[in-house]
Amino acid sequence: MKLLTFKYQDTTYWGVLKEDGIYYSDHLIQFFPNMGSIIENFHHLNLEQDLTKFVKLDEVEILPPYRPNKNIMCIGKNYSEHAMEMTNDPNSIPKDPVVFTKSPSSVIGDGQPVKAHSHVTEQLDYEGELAVIIGKKGINITKENALDYVFGYTIMNDITARDLQKKHQQFFKGKSLDTFAPMGPYIVTADEIEDVQELSIVTKINDEVRQNGNTKDMIFSVAKLIEILSQGMTLEPGDIIATGTPSGVGKGFNPPKFLKAGDSVSIEVKGIGTLTNTIVS
Amino acid sequence: MKLLTFKYQDTTYWGVLKEDGIYYSDHLIQFFPNMGSIIENFHHLNLEQDLTKFVKLDEVEILPPYRPNKNIMCIGKNYSEHAMEMTNDPNSIPKDPVVFTKSPSSVIGDGQPVKAHSHVTEQLDYEGELAVIIGKKGINITKENALDYVFGYTIMNDITARDLQKKHQQFFKGKSLDTFAPMGPYIVTADEIEDVQELSIVTKINDEVRQNGNTKDMIFSVAKLIEILSQGMTLEPGDIIATGTPSGVGKGFNPPKFLKAGDSVSIEVKGIGTLTNTIVS
Repeated sequence: MKLLTFKYQDTTYWGVLKEDGIYYSDHLIQFFPNMGSIIENFHHLNLEQDLTKFVKLDEVEILPPYRPNKNIMCIGKNYSEHAMEMTNDPNSIPKDPVVFTKSPSSVIGDGQPVKAHSHVTEQLDYEGELAVIIGKKGINITKENALDYVFGYTIMNDITARDLQKKHQQFFKGKSLDTFAPMGPYIVTADEIEDVQELSIVTKINDEVRQNGNTKDMIFSVAKLIEILSQGMTLEPGDIIATGTPSGVGKGFNPPKFLKAGDSVSIEVKGIGTLTNTIVS
Repeated sequence: MKLLTFKYQDTTYWGVLKEDGIYYSDHLIQFFPNMGSIIENFHHLNLEQDLTKFVKLDEVEILPPYRPNKNIMCIGKNYSEHAMEMTNDPNSIPKDPVVFTKSPSSVIGDGQPVKAHSHVTEQLDYEGELAVIIGKKGINITKENALDYVFGYTIMNDITARDLQKKHQQFFKGKSLDTFAPMGPYIVTADEIEDVQELSIVTKINDEVRQNGNTKDMIFSVAKLIEILSQGMTLEPGDIIATGTPSGVGKGFNPPKFLKAGDSVSIEVKGIGTLTNTIVS
């Protein structure tokens, strides 16, 4: 099932995307006002039956699936080739996951503009990533059971101000400027993804392929990340884990290829969809 | 005004602490269900007039003031002596603030136990800090106006698993285990604090003074932190900034003095109060 949040006739709804368009409800939304409440209550609902209204995809504005109620957890250097392009040092390939966060205030949806923030940064970069959405509360989860805790998957563009990332040492600030977390276009429920460690990730800047990776090359698999993150720390429904980016980011080129106003960034993850956003000044 | 959240007769309320006890309302809470909604709507309310119910402080259980809806922003190495005790390297004194985050799932209140998580960490440490609570939305705030955006202040114990902090490189995981963010006991509104850069911070472990600092020694003042954090990133009501810890943390001793089950950690910030929590296995 593909779940999305959208605006139609000035009202925000969540719904299910099918081949012909979006099925939604103006009744259920009173009890489940947003995608966060759907994620928490998904197993009590019968969405196939209860979504009786219909609208075509091109009649709506797509919004981010939801704004999480904590920061997005992001994994740094989870693909060896990306670790190498950033540092040129084999020792930089992590033995334990590097975990930083992005503010939920930076979340935007598919098609919404990314601000260049040129008064603050001169090194705007993209990172195409598979994002995991947790569906069930858990702590000290083992990797064998970890995928039972996944609600679904989406795409995240972990937009980064490289100069701020370096200047502040810890990554949070350079990752959290407004509009720096394009997410979507929708959430694909876990049952639709046969093997999450076998998904291609392709990032294009204005039709030029920059990243051409595959989740099979993750250093820490989705299941392993959930195991490690949940050690001593409760994961909750709606938590988001951005699983790291393959090689091919702007900073990895010589000279670097940073983003500028007008550039379009398009990330396709196989089986999930395509997330496209344009940079504005 | 001192605002707090508490449990009384199995119900959670927010209220105002005065010399004789707590004033609260079972009517207003229907419209403003938690402290977050009070922070957002404070200037439309007349709490002096509307809180007509009373209970003594020793009849209630104090809870954390609130759970924020994004991670707590924390400043690393904001006191020179602390930077030195951690690294013994004058170059480690930061020229730009080091900003990392703690998960809101780790927040607990005054008197609630901190779990040792001994299956995950062997280096449990404390950090007494002044925490700033943002009251007004803003972006690109200048330091001259920054304190207008402050709702109030509280105390935070930035509990840290030093081994995890190091292992994961970025600090998030080692800072975010369940119960790692004791906060409170209450929020003191900004009008009660004459000079936020002139507050003593004293941390005791079982009556032994370990930290004896003063906010006048911050490298980046509260106003400067708000200026820098808000560059390109919208600050929102309820956002929390933990402003860094003075020297005297457990890791700073030789040999280190890490926390163990049974230890009591008590942090007093002048004009704010005292936050006390005990470690449990």
